[in-house]
Amino acid sequence: MNAAIAPGAAIGILGGGQLGRMLAHAASRLGFDVHIYTDEPDSPAARVAARTIVADYHDHAALAAFAGDAAVVTTEFENVPADAAAALIAAGAIVHPNPRALAIAQDRLEEKRYFAANGLTPAPFAPVETIADLRAAVHAIGLPAILKTRRLGYDGRGQARLESDLGLDQALEAFAGAPLILEGFCRFEREVSIIAARNAAGEFAAYDLCENEHRGGVLARTIVPAKCDAAVQAKAVAEARRLMQALDYVGVLTIEFFLMPDGALIANEMAPRVHNSGHWTIEAALTSQFEQHIRAIAGWPLGPAARLCDAEMENLIGEDAERWAALAADPTARVHLYGKREARPGRKMGHVTRLKR
Amino acid sequence: MNAAIAPGAAIGILGGGQLGRMLAHAASRLGFDVHIYTDEPDSPAARVAARTIVADYHDHAALAAFAGDAAVVTTEFENVPADAAAALIAAGAIVHPNPRALAIAQDRLEEKRYFAANGLTPAPFAPVETIADLRAAVHAIGLPAILKTRRLGYDGRGQARLESDLGLDQALEAFAGAPLILEGFCRFEREVSIIAARNAAGEFAAYDLCENEHRGGVLARTIVPAKCDAAVQAKAVAEARRLMQALDYVGVLTIEFFLMPDGALIANEMAPRVHNSGHWTIEAALTSQFEQHIRAIAGWPLGPAARLCDAEMENLIGEDAERWAALAADPTARVHLYGKREARPGRKMGHVTRLKR
Repeated sequence: MNAAIAPGAAIGILGGGQLGRMLAHAASRLGFDVHIYTDEPDSPAARVAARTIVADYHDHAALAAFAGDAAVVTTEFENVPADAAAALIAAGAIVHPNPRALAIAQDRLEEKRYFAANGLTPAPFAPVETIADLRAAVHAIGLPAILKTRRLGYDGRGQARLESDLGLDQALEAFAGAPLILEGFCRFEREVSIIAARNAAGEFAAYDLCENEHRGGVLARTIVPAKCDAAVQAKAVAEARRLMQALDYVGVLTIEFFLMPDGALIANEMAPRVHNSGHWTIEAALTSQFEQHIRAIAGWPLGPAARLCDAEMENLIGEDAERWAALAADPTARVHLYGKREARPGRKMGHVTRLKR
Repeated sequence: MNAAIAPGAAIGILGGGQLGRMLAHAASRLGFDVHIYTDEPDSPAARVAARTIVADYHDHAALAAFAGDAAVVTTEFENVPADAAAALIAAGAIVHPNPRALAIAQDRLEEKRYFAANGLTPAPFAPVETIADLRAAVHAIGLPAILKTRRLGYDGRGQARLESDLGLDQALEAFAGAPLILEGFCRFEREVSIIAARNAAGEFAAYDLCENEHRGGVLARTIVPAKCDAAVQAKAVAEARRLMQALDYVGVLTIEFFLMPDGALIANEMAPRVHNSGHWTIEAALTSQFEQHIRAIAGWPLGPAARLCDAEMENLIGEDAERWAALAADPTARVHLYGKREARPGRKMGHVTRLKR
């Protein structure tokens, strides 16, 4: 049934960004060829892969060709069009994570409902399409609250913080009719994430909880281990395990939580993929999140997720990448640069990991 | 003068084998594009590089095109034809390590003379072209001794052990007129290697001494640290530093020594490149030998060569690679497979590193 894929086979990755690049590194280290499918010419992942198809994600003929050459197909981003996943499966591909997990992660409303249905605790939430919905939701949830698009939001985009009952009409209009969700604002103590892996045999492994600092809605810094009780770590692991079992999930999945002053974990969102807050695992865990994902989707046993030492990861965003020479001279910095040609503001250009030994 | 090469530039690597593959991983992690030049189609390194030229090493037009696109050119094997290096330099390439270092490493006689001239201690040696040379050399050096081709020997190929004065004619004839060297046999306690790096600014860094076990002339196992006194480690580092300064060497260089029962280090050979006995540095050093080589040739400051823990590296040779499923299930094994299509006897297919924490 779930026989391990032998080295020498090709692993297909949808998406050509830095996560695909680091997945490609890990897959090739294990002896696999990597095929990238991306709509972006000259992408970071393409430059470290054996083969690249540059085509639209709705090009079913190109997707079928891609599927035909890969022993398994995975993705480095959650917003894979549903028809792309369907086309790959129709062409005979094994796709991990499965389209249901991708679909749930693509819709904040479905995601929060799924969290609640599986014993996780989301912030109070309500769907919003009309001004009446919004007024009712604000009344039920209270203020401040965050109005978000249900789909295609990431890194703080597609969000507005509501502080007052005044101006709800304008707030709604700014989203131009997109389906929305209102979420209660959590006065959290810290933001943490759990990164876990599961393979088709049901084997499960989780890394130590990561503590994340965002700036402008973008992850700026991760430290491990997160400052929290062992009970919090255990709870996050148990919730990840339960969610992944429910989804029959294969691969690495990340859940971001708000850690509340009373120790409660509010499930904020999940990413059905390797995650920026797990980049420290390259140097500071026995198996990196990237290798772990490849092991899981290839039907290999999971590797040990043990942490080797404390670590801190700093993102290089936009012009931060211009500091490369100073970082190259910093003996404490393990430098990762993604090969992006242009350092646009807010763009993740690289990261550095510092080991705390 | 020796300005650091900025990320985004291309690093050219001559050779498409596993060392090129692991160099490509390290270079791309630092944000460089990698261009491979190899005479082998579908090579391990090509499958993780941004661009590959498949051409003969004597194709000066192809070499010039390769040189034109790369900010610096390096090599993953020592037997680069002299005319290839000259053609690259004529085309304007910066080539590290320099052709003089490559030329010396290609000729066992030149190499041993260079060792002796720079204060290292080779085994007794003598050049051999005729039977008279051989008889005189055997008389001077004694038996047993090793008769080797001066050029193109590696992994125990091109060698014959002489035990007796009888049969010297046949031994010589087996080499079909190739220029030879006779080397005295060393009754060593262990085989060790030092891996060191130097950049154009003269900065130098060395890893802890590696202890190597060969089987059938091929490296089977490396353990670090080598069982030896601190004085031996210090002497090996000093000799590497002196040799690299003399050669005005830029990049990683490896010297293999015989460690004698009295603590003496007999310099056996040097490899002007990253080395199989340094693969443990990927997991167990702060900077891997591959990243260190890229840093050196790119004019970056060297990274710290500190060892994180004890480690053991086992080569997967020929059919050893068929054990991949068992190794994948071994939590102590960090698995590296090189993507070679065919597991020929004696061929290096991969390696595993085990951390001893």
